[in-house]
Formats: sequence, structure tokens, C-alpha cells
Amino acid sequence: MKKLLLHLDTDQIASAFDSVVAYDAGADNLLSHGSVTRDNVTGLVHGMIFTRGGSKLKNSAIFIGGSDVDATDSVGRAVKKAFFGPVRVSVMLDPNGSNTTAAAVVRKVLSDYDVTGKKVVIIGSGPVGQRAALYFVKEGAREVVITSRSMTRAKIITSQMQAVYDVEVTPGEAASDEDIKQHLHDTHIAIGAGPAGVCVLSKEAWGSSETLAVLADVNAVPPLGVEEMEIMDDGVEKQGITFYGAIAIGNFKMKVHRAAVASLFESNDLFLDETTIYDLARTIDNKI
Amino acid sequence: MKKLLLHLDTDQIASAFDSVVAYDAGADNLLSHGSVTRDNVTGLVHGMIFTRGGSKLKNSAIFIGGSDVDATDSVGRAVKKAFFGPVRVSVMLDPNGSNTTAAAVVRKVLSDYDVTGKKVVIIGSGPVGQRAALYFVKEGAREVVITSRSMTRAKIITSQMQAVYDVEVTPGEAASDEDIKQHLHDTHIAIGAGPAGVCVLSKEAWGSSETLAVLADVNAVPPLGVEEMEIMDDGVEKQGITFYGAIAIGNFKMKVHRAAVASLFESNDLFLDETTIYDLARTIDNKI
Amino acid sequence: MKKLLLHLDTDQIASAFDSVVAYDAGADNLLSHGSVTRDNVTGLVHGMIFTRGGSKLKNSAIFIGGSDVDATDSVGRAVKKAFFGPVRVSVMLDPNGSNTTAAAVVRKVLSDYDVTGKKVVIIGSGPVGQRAALYFVKEGAREVVITSRSMTRAKIITSQMQAVYDVEVTPGEAASDEDIKQHLHDTHIAIGAGPAGVCVLSKEAWGSSETLAVLADVNAVPPLGVEEMEIMDDGVEKQGITFYGAIAIGNFKMKVHRAAVASLFESNDLFLDETTIYDLARTIDNKI
Repeated sequence: MKKLLLHLDTDQIASAFDSVVAYDAGADNLLSHGSVTRDNVTGLVHGMIFTRGGSKLKNSAIFIGGSDVDATDSVGRAVKKAFFGPVRVSVMLDPNGSNTTAAAVVRKVLSDYDVTGKKVVIIGSGPVGQRAALYFVKEGAREVVITSRSMTRAKIITSQMQAVYDVEVTPGEAASDEDIKQHLHDTHIAIGAGPAGVCVLSKEAWGSSETLAVLADVNAVPPLGVEEMEIMDDGVEKQGITFYGAIAIGNFKMKVHRAAVASLFESNDLFLDETTIYDLARTIDNKI
Repeated sequence: MKKLLLHLDTDQIASAFDSVVAYDAGADNLLSHGSVTRDNVTGLVHGMIFTRGGSKLKNSAIFIGGSDVDATDSVGRAVKKAFFGPVRVSVMLDPNGSNTTAAAVVRKVLSDYDVTGKKVVIIGSGPVGQRAALYFVKEGAREVVITSRSMTRAKIITSQMQAVYDVEVTPGEAASDEDIKQHLHDTHIAIGAGPAGVCVLSKEAWGSSETLAVLADVNAVPPLGVEEMEIMDDGVEKQGITFYGAIAIGNFKMKVHRAAVASLFESNDLFLDETTIYDLARTIDNKI
Repeated sequence: MKKLLLHLDTDQIASAFDSVVAYDAGADNLLSHGSVTRDNVTGLVHGMIFTRGGSKLKNSAIFIGGSDVDATDSVGRAVKKAFFGPVRVSVMLDPNGSNTTAAAVVRKVLSDYDVTGKKVVIIGSGPVGQRAALYFVKEGAREVVITSRSMTRAKIITSQMQAVYDVEVTPGEAASDEDIKQHLHDTHIAIGAGPAGVCVLSKEAWGSSETLAVLADVNAVPPLGVEEMEIMDDGVEKQGITFYGAIAIGNFKMKVHRAAVASLFESNDLFLDETTIYDLARTIDNKI
């Protein structure tokens, strides 16, 4: 029986990236649809859950992507609502790759470092930064800070995270290099999670910290997010700090992404979203 | 050579249900398109008939679905028109699953009962009811009645059926329980073919008949279409009457649907519409 | 690893013809998208080039089709622009089948004739005619004429060809049979490359030439483009002239089309457009 993946995208055109990864993860055929919303998704879900019975149901699954995180989450909730109790299929959400990317950042950083009781600062408050914060808390970090250029935005984000995930994340302002230096002075891990093509962490800032042990950066577009980072850095030590660049993280992200899609076909009741995808990422060897 | 199915849907989004069934029926790859009309279908048909020659042509086929029966029929006619004599591929029409569902209803009912010379009443005048009526006539029923809340609508439907299929179906009004009792008093088979979530046949109505031997219901959404019907009933006897619920019918419908799609790839000249799909359904064992 | 083809179409609905040929050429799965423009294609291209690394990249490829040649070329340029140096996949452009059809015309004509030093007249100035002219020049024809009903259009086309491809093609007016007779009187090969269903070359015209050795016609819709041509003619001699009809050319076109798609998966850096597709067509046996 073919492994069929209903590939839903909230963008107009279903992502080729997500399609290729799905095939490489073992899906036999994709049913790809763009412009999917919570209003047109129910029939598609019913088509998946009412066509194969019992133990065969696990051969059908759903992937939801798109560049708009909120729209994707909204479709995710509609998909869940369309299920009839145990008559359901496994689902994965990965809007803009943010879940798998954030999981990859944290797993790479932890491949050679124990975060227990340590302090983490994340420069950037977008989806990847938020999810990475969530996972660092899960891994036992003493304190995780999410910074934004605007303290108001940082506070909104961290109080939303408190409400939705019941986690304590510290809001931080990062309007200047001085601000960032302040944040880093007793920090062990710093993550560049800003927009593509913007350097958010100068050498002056990270060089001033005496505790910093690990630096990671998800920005693959020059100028990179962390000064002196190189895109291929994969555990390279510079001035006593271990560097992880966007390609090293991206390669591991692909492993997480493929493993997550593959896992959908092992049972019919997985729901891999930003909270659960990390558990799966933990099962993937991050030492190689 | 791959079995390729051009999967056309008159709805905006091509049905996932029909896609999954097509794969399970043995199609290797689907070319799925939503928003198909008689005006944009010709090029697609030519793409199927002009790419593979001679005996290889049977590896290409066309499935037409959609929630609007008339729109689907219209596309079906346009597809036929786009063929060049013997340069054609096999085609299946199943708008809203109505053809395969109606065939399944009749085959299930006949699995343990001989309708020859008997009277059938169908409560509901939609596509499934109409097609079921057609098949009961074909099977030798003495009289088949299609009821509607409005006698005018019932008459329109039955005279259309006379014109299109050259069959005699009796129009019946079913505005009240009293009406239905009247229809059932000398009836052997009654079919609930009303809308989802509406009970169209009360126990008082069906209980009053002294001739009734079989009851079937296509409505899977509570309240079911026939009082005291259970969705899983598959030949269960209650007060001397054999009951067939929506799941039992639905399971057989899946067999018919899959067998029909599979048969498309056996020759290049099948045209499975509401009149011919039943012949195929007859070849499927309905005793198990 | 699956051979994945990103199938882009500038028309609203992705061509079924191109889809079927792609599967028959060995693609395992297609990612088909209609309504593709230079403005929405970049993300799709990145999805193909950033998902598989190194030697595996050749298992991903891109096909661009559509009935509008200019729109397709525009998408082709945008695809090229989206590559990052060697991080690219193989691409094929075949708007309206014009590249593969023109290549097939020329290869069929040359299967039994040496064009070196000879004169060719092409009746019709559309994409197929233009590309055929290009290939005849490449094969060493002494002179190649493209005719149009309007000399102004013929001159525009040939000067564009000079500018874009650096080839010398002679513009010719073909407003009357008299004009065409003039063109053919010292011509060896004449090609009917006019619109479907229009006879562009009368018997009186081609019969008047004493040098004419080969006649080919791409029009498959009666009346055919060349009087006394039959659609199945495949090297048939009539009055000392060898005839090639639309089906014979079409069958070879299919071979070229399939071989071209298949070749995309042999490396990651092919770019098969109107200038390069002919080199590939030359590797296919045109004697059988």
C-alpha cells in the first residue's frame, strides 16, 4: 500500500522544498495543494481518514507548511477538528521550516555542550527564535532570553509563550551593541536568529563576554548573522567559542525534517507541531 | 509503463478521497486538477490520448469527480467529444461518489434478497436515490418509487429519468409519516437516500408495513436516515427486516470504486458513468 | 533516490501532454504547477536546488512548458537567475513543443538527405519555423529562407534571429502562390510550418520547382499544410520528392522529447533550450 502524504501549503503554490523532502523521506506519492485555509481543508482531511481502514490508516498522513506561521497553525487546528476521535492520521506542521530549523539549532548546539543550568540568549524574536527558546528551556537551561530591538515586542512574545506553552522566557531589548554586550556578559550560548542578510551579533559584542561557549547562526545570506561566523562552520573553535553556521545547521535540519515525515507513516496518531517535533529531533544522532 | 490517471474535479480542489482510492486501485501516478470545466478540459484530454500509442494507450485513463453532478456530467460529455474515434482512453464518472454509492446500496440489498417482481421505495430524490432506482429497475423490480417532500420535484425527476434513461420510475410525495406509510404498505425494499444528518424514515413508518423485508440507509451522520438503523448494520435482522447501514454500504462502495478505477487500465475504451458502472459492480462478490 | 521533475507551465493548467511524456521518460514523480511566471518561480527553484546535495542533485530537474513562447523563455531566464553557480539542476524548455518539434522536422528531413550547401525554404515564421531554420543553418545549409505573408514580419523575425543567435536567415514574402514559386524554383527542401488546418504550400507551387527534393509538414489538422501530403507519410516519394507528414514527424518528436527529459537526470547542469536541444536530437537514430 502506497504511503500517501497530503501536502498542504497556506501559500499560493505548494512548496517544492517540502515536496522534495517528503519524497526523500519515503512518501510514495504526494497530494499537494496550495492556497489551503481552515475553511477549505476539512474535505481534504476527510478524504484521507475515510479511505483506508484500521492498521492501513497509517499509510496516509498530512504535512502542513507555508511561509505564514499563524495561517499554518490555523490550518493545523482545523485539521485536528476534522478528525473523528481515533479515525485520524498523523500530522506534521513546519511553517517556513521553523520547527525543524529551531530543533536543528538546539540539537547542534547540544552536540558538544551541556546546557543544564546555563544561560542562553537568542537574538531575534521570530518563529525560529521562539521555538529554539522553548527547546532550550526543555533541555534544562537556567535562563533563556529572547531579545528584540523593541522591548515591548520582546515582552509580548515572552508573555504569549508563557500563556501558550507555560514556559518562562526572559524578554530582552537589543537596540544597540551595548544592550547585547549586557545580555551576553554572563551568557553561555548565543543564537543569531535574526532576518536573512542582517548581522545581529558583532564580534565586539560576542568578544566581550567571558562566559560565552557556543555561538550559532541560522542566517545563510551574507552578511551572516554573527560576525566571523562562516556558513560551513560545524563546531569550529574560534577564541575558545564553538561556532555553528547556517549550512551545518541546515544539513541537520534536513535530517530532522526527513525523519519527522518518515515517522508520520509509523502510526496514525502523531501530531508533530512546534512542541512535539523536538522530541523526535532528540532521537537523531547529532554527533556526526 | 506507468498507469497514469488524469484526475479531474469540477470543485476548486481535487478530491483527496478520489485521489487515495485511485492510488489504492493501482494507479501509479495521478495528474490531479481542480476547477475543471467543459471549456478547459479538451487540452488535457488530448494530452492523454496523443502521448501513448496503440496497445499502450490503456495505461492512460481519466477519472471525473466533483460535488456538482451536472458540472461533472458536462465535463464527461466534453471529454467524450475530445476523443478521435478509437484514439481514446477509458473514463470513469463518479460525481460525489454517487454512482459507486448507489451501486453499492443495490448490491448490498441484493446480497441476500431477490428483487425480481418486488416493489422498492427510495426516500430521497438526489443523485444516489436516482441511480439506485435505475439499478433496481435493471434488476427486475416490479415497481420503483422515488419520493420527495414535493410531488412536483418527484415528477420532474422521474420524467427526466424517463427521457434520459428510458426507465419507468413512479414519483411519490413524502411530506409526512402518513405519506411514507402509504408508500410502504405493499413495499419490500425501502432505501433511506436523504441528506446527511436527517432521519427520513421513522420506526412508526417502516414498522407499519407488513411486506417490508429490507432497509438500507446511506446517511452516516447522526441522526441516521432510518430510525433504529445502526451505522455498522450489515445484514442484521430486526423485527424480521434486514438492515444495511452506511458503513456496510460504504465499505462495499470502496470495493466498487477501486474495482472501477482498476478496470480503466484494462482497455482504452471503457466509459463508466451512472448507466454502466452498475454492470461492473455486479462482478464483485457481495456475499462477503 | 527518486527522480523528481519540477514541471512548470506558464498556462493556467499544467499540460497533461508534458506530464505523460515526463513519466514515460523516467521521471518518478512530478511537481506540476500551472500559472508559473518569472515572479513566482524563484522559491520553486530554490526548493529543487537546496534539498539534495552533491552528486544527488542530478535526481532533481526542471521542465518548462506553455503555449506562450515568450512567457516560457521569461520563466527560463528567471530559473537560471535563481541558481547559485554550480548549485543548480538541469532544465529543459519546450514551449508548445516547439523545440522538440523543430528538431524532429530537421532530423527527419536529414534522415535521407544531405543539406550541406543546399537551399531551404520554411513557409511560416512561428516558433517551429524559426527553430527549424536555426538547425538547418547549423547543419550547413547554403541558404535558409523564412517566409511570412508580410515581408515586414519576415524581416523582423530574421533580424531578431541574427541578433539573438548570430545566424543569417533570409526573409521572404509569401503573400501568393506566385511568391512561393519564386522562392522554390532553386530550393531543395521546403517545410510547411504554418498554422494548424491551413494549406500553405499548394501542389502548383511545389510542383513547379525543378530542384525540390524533400517536403515536410508539421500541420496535423486537415487541410494539411502541404497539398498531397498525407499525415502518415514517412519518406514516401511522390514525383521524385520525399514527403514527411505530421505523424511521422510527431513520432520522432516524442523520441526527442523523451530523450531530452531523460537526459536531464544524467547531470545537474544541462540547459536544453532552442539552441541546445538540437544537439541532443542528433544523438537519436533517425533512420528507423
